[in-house]
Amino acid sequence: MKMIIHIFIILSLVSSISFASVQDFCVADPKGPQSPSGYSCKNPDQVTENDFAFTGLGKAGNTSNIIKAAVTPAFAPTFAGINGLGVSLARLDLATGGVIPLHTHPGASEVLVVIQGTICAGFISSANKVYLKTLQKGDSMVFPQGLLHFQLNSGKGPALAFVAFGSSSPGLQILSFALFANDLPSELVEATTFLSDAEVKKLKGVLGGTN
Amino acid sequence: MKMIIHIFIILSLVSSISFASVQDFCVADPKGPQSPSGYSCKNPDQVTENDFAFTGLGKAGNTSNIIKAAVTPAFAPTFAGINGLGVSLARLDLATGGVIPLHTHPGASEVLVVIQGTICAGFISSANKVYLKTLQKGDSMVFPQGLLHFQLNSGKGPALAFVAFGSSSPGLQILSFALFANDLPSELVEATTFLSDAEVKKLKGVLGGTN
Amino acid sequence: MKMIIHIFIILSLVSSISFASVQDFCVADPKGPQSPSGYSCKNPDQVTENDFAFTGLGKAGNTSNIIKAAVTPAFAPTFAGINGLGVSLARLDLATGGVIPLHTHPGASEVLVVIQGTICAGFISSANKVYLKTLQKGDSMVFPQGLLHFQLNSGKGPALAFVAFGSSSPGLQILSFALFANDLPSELVEATTFLSDAEVKKLKGVLGGTN
Amino acid sequence: MKMIIHIFIILSLVSSISFASVQDFCVADPKGPQSPSGYSCKNPDQVTENDFAFTGLGKAGNTSNIIKAAVTPAFAPTFAGINGLGVSLARLDLATGGVIPLHTHPGASEVLVVIQGTICAGFISSANKVYLKTLQKGDSMVFPQGLLHFQLNSGKGPALAFVAFGSSSPGLQILSFALFANDLPSELVEATTFLSDAEVKKLKGVLGGTN
Amino acid sequence: MKMIIHIFIILSLVSSISFASVQDFCVADPKGPQSPSGYSCKNPDQVTENDFAFTGLGKAGNTSNIIKAAVTPAFAPTFAGINGLGVSLARLDLATGGVIPLHTHPGASEVLVVIQGTICAGFISSANKVYLKTLQKGDSMVFPQGLLHFQLNSGKGPALAFVAFGSSSPGLQILSFALFANDLPSELVEATTFLSDAEVKKLKGVLGGTN
Amino acid sequence: MKMIIHIFIILSLVSSISFASVQDFCVADPKGPQSPSGYSCKNPDQVTENDFAFTGLGKAGNTSNIIKAAVTPAFAPTFAGINGLGVSLARLDLATGGVIPLHTHPGASEVLVVIQGTICAGFISSANKVYLKTLQKGDSMVFPQGLLHFQLNSGKGPALAFVAFGSSSPGLQILSFALFANDLPSELVEATTFLSDAEVKKLKGVLGGTN
Repeated sequence: MKMIIHIFIILSLVSSISFASVQDFCVADPKGPQSPSGYSCKNPDQVTENDFAFTGLGKAGNTSNIIKAAVTPAFAPTFAGINGLGVSLARLDLATGGVIPLHTHPGASEVLVVIQGTICAGFISSANKVYLKTLQKGDSMVFPQGLLHFQLNSGKGPALAFVAFGSSSPGLQILSFALFANDLPSELVEATTFLSDAEVKKLKGVLGGTN
Repeated sequence: MKMIIHIFIILSLVSSISFASVQDFCVADPKGPQSPSGYSCKNPDQVTENDFAFTGLGKAGNTSNIIKAAVTPAFAPTFAGINGLGVSLARLDLATGGVIPLHTHPGASEVLVVIQGTICAGFISSANKVYLKTLQKGDSMVFPQGLLHFQLNSGKGPALAFVAFGSSSPGLQILSFALFANDLPSELVEATTFLSDAEVKKLKGVLGGTN
Repeated sequence: MKMIIHIFIILSLVSSISFASVQDFCVADPKGPQSPSGYSCKNPDQVTENDFAFTGLGKAGNTSNIIKAAVTPAFAPTFAGINGLGVSLARLDLATGGVIPLHTHPGASEVLVVIQGTICAGFISSANKVYLKTLQKGDSMVFPQGLLHFQLNSGKGPALAFVAFGSSSPGLQILSFALFANDLPSELVEATTFLSDAEVKKLKGVLGGTN
Repeated sequence: MKMIIHIFIILSLVSSISFASVQDFCVADPKGPQSPSGYSCKNPDQVTENDFAFTGLGKAGNTSNIIKAAVTPAFAPTFAGINGLGVSLARLDLATGGVIPLHTHPGASEVLVVIQGTICAGFISSANKVYLKTLQKGDSMVFPQGLLHFQLNSGKGPALAFVAFGSSSPGLQILSFALFANDLPSELVEATTFLSDAEVKKLKGVLGGTN
Repeated sequence: MKMIIHIFIILSLVSSISFASVQDFCVADPKGPQSPSGYSCKNPDQVTENDFAFTGLGKAGNTSNIIKAAVTPAFAPTFAGINGLGVSLARLDLATGGVIPLHTHPGASEVLVVIQGTICAGFISSANKVYLKTLQKGDSMVFPQGLLHFQLNSGKGPALAFVAFGSSSPGLQILSFALFANDLPSELVEATTFLSDAEVKKLKGVLGGTN
Repeated sequence: MKMIIHIFIILSLVSSISFASVQDFCVADPKGPQSPSGYSCKNPDQVTENDFAFTGLGKAGNTSNIIKAAVTPAFAPTFAGINGLGVSLARLDLATGGVIPLHTHPGASEVLVVIQGTICAGFISSANKVYLKTLQKGDSMVFPQGLLHFQLNSGKGPALAFVAFGSSSPGLQILSFALFANDLPSELVEATTFLSDAEVKKLKGVLGGTN
């Protein structure tokens, strides 16, 4: 009898205290409005363990493309539970000769760990200094926020790496796609990069750009 | 001749603009004072590519211990270049039957990806709800900041995972070490956990606690 | 006449400048969507002084329970005006022998001030070091973010304290409720804490857990 | 033929990678709910270059008022694209003898640059120390967050300045409007400022206050 | 024998894992350099429980002064352990008729709880709207960051309150001291507040200002 | 006599309260250690009004260079008072035909206002979409953090603009200098950008790169 009362009391206590738990997490509700801090939160009553797990990184990305490489992100809203938690992951697959071209993440620093193969990676500082390393299985490297960096398979077989970001929405801007895979007029590309007209038009041709 | 002048002008320009690059990164100088934002910064002139790379995650941790598991962190100051960049990594090795006991990271959310084996992982929310998943190779799971969570090898062979944090200083508090591996008086442990005196003293014995 | 013009001009000026005031505060609208940064904001035109005041801390919490203690939070959405402002309060009532069991706040550091009675409080660092103090009326103590801590009435009469947090949504995870007051399977509790099966089942019985 | 395939592959690649770009920006949708982090985001598909540009700072503000000055803000939602980006601008026009009265920005530090004329500017620290400078065309000055400061045309002709803030929602509280342009009872103004009843009532009269 | 080995292994494990604990806290070392994030950190080996406790709030402040009130802060470096933890406390003592004059905290929002007596408190928004409440024992009120606010003893006996801030360094700017207790030239005070020369000079006299 | 006592009391009060003002600002001390949050703070007793003012933006930058343009930053430590305050400024001078080449700021969003002339400005999103505007005197435009953008004088005479950043240390990475003005091996530039060997070597020649 006393135990029953105890349990009743505990449950009330737990229930009243759990009131404080509203913002342990904010699982993305892609149908709600977004804010500068991320996606709207799904009703906590409808959140399940599946919202916090993601299976998309288990499969090699398709590397049958011009860069012989693939980036598979684990970001919101596909990975709904990561919304607002300040961290995220992606998988890099690099076939032999594959490369993740020069790119930046506007919103976060990145740290990489090699799972398979040999990767030559580097970044360039604001002072235009180059930091370059050849990384083997198990090696890791950090790329400070917003700086140009790349990863290149410098080994003989395929390479695999995971990268983590200090934001659930790090962004990704691939330099040559930004320059050549859109309608930015060729004369503006040339004026703002010193590249020649011929080079710009050739790469616009390869990468699908216009103008 | 004109080219030489150009180069001279460019170099001056680059040099004056690089003035803005002071805080691309803040490689940890472990001999300087720490601040709430992290370690002091090494003189940028003495920073090399080696400061941004870390080889410590390439070797399996020693799992010949009571938990049959090991956590190998890639945090500052060992991984000096990661200081202040808001992200970090660790490697989890779990021998057959191994477990990373219930723990929290006071300063960051965590996201895990399984590299080998099968891991049963879970976390408990402020509302005392349990979120539990069995993860295979390539699966990932996120653990919101500060909540109790664990990882357990639920497969037949060894398991390997990498975990990332949204802070270069996430912290790590392992529950049973916090309770039983120090001089927190047994009567305080008991009063604040409801555990029995016998249980507390037994575990203090196993884990090296006193009082 | 000149005064009337002045007032008219001033009012226009004030009105145009008040345009900048949209985000002085963001009073919680519990019916709107939540974001990682908190509750949606109530229409400022409908905000009144009552949104910024809270009377819930004036009444002692009910300490007729297993812990002989009560936590009364002043968090959003009950205290609507505190949403997004990065601070919050709670009231701790500890009857004679009462205890706030070991717990963590995943989202904020806490500072406590004793109003009445004698409280023994402590926290445990990531390095498993114990910091323990007996506090009298007027004494205060700080508990760093995410670390296990407790408060225990070590005096002869009731004790009262107020605690403040550096977040309007600090969260609260009470260790023994997280372990024993839910459906986390006993074998997982045991494997991840080193507690015995008998102890786990006994406490699940006391605290209402299953499995 | 091979090129066509390349383009097809690239476009898929670009399309899949652009998935990561959701939060490059969060253009304000003034019809959606606000959160502590700012306005809701407009659907990215409906965002145009016009959302990132603002023409409102090109026209001198109307200085035919009691302060012979005008503040023209470039904040959200009028400048929709700036929402959530952590920076904003305003234009200050000061006719001869004009003054931006003592004020604070609760949410951000400010930096000013003089475009035309001579401005005497100053701020007061928490230690009640005064930092005062006379600024000419091209001079800049910084005002730390939340501290009382002012700008006064101390030259012979009109003055123009631009000010920037480290928030897209810095707020603006003009001291004398806060004291005298509302219904704060005169006796409360007097008790909390040491000003005399006559002075308070006179300024309430001038600035449109009641009570 | 096996137990001894276990303990040895555990201790190594604990020791290696405690490596991650460097930034659980950053107890202020007032002799080291400060940074924008706060004081330098004391060597963790020299930190004791006394760094996390503070006895200064236990004694009533001296209210024998012009405002019949006292503010006693619990900030770093006096309360060394609170440095960098994003929260702080202060004690307000208000004798009969006492007042904490209009003031702002540039760096944090504030929440107040009344311990004794009756306090009339209010703040003024950027839109110059007044939010005013009379608070009894146990009532609390929040004052958004950087906005002018005051607390006034509106009861018959002394009043006591505690206030908390969402920063360990909230700052405090008391309006009338900022205006009248320094060397800010009278003509600048007048030009930037609309106050009369007589009033300004009178209050400079009362509060110790010059010029 | 009473007045003298008053003043004495006030001064004590002011002095004790000013204790809270330590971190109103953190004027850069370039000789002290840096931290991830910025430069060490100068002793507040040695801070003067000159630390908060900066005259470097008053003079046109030298545009006799390959880009016919100049960027003059107002950042720490040259502008010492801005350290840690989360905002900064720079001046852009563009001679006829001048251009600020494609670049990013890794640490902050930017907002620009045109003071003189006509500027064509644009940025490219992570989705590779181009946002392009021609801006006249008084027009402003915002460039979200970390995204590639440029400014080009598209008028007939010189152009002048000021830009503000939401950080006192925004960084600046000029694309073509990062690619061609250092020792990044040509084959890596080519592999990670799709540019031709001839183009890379030509631009390395122009911009002073090696390898």
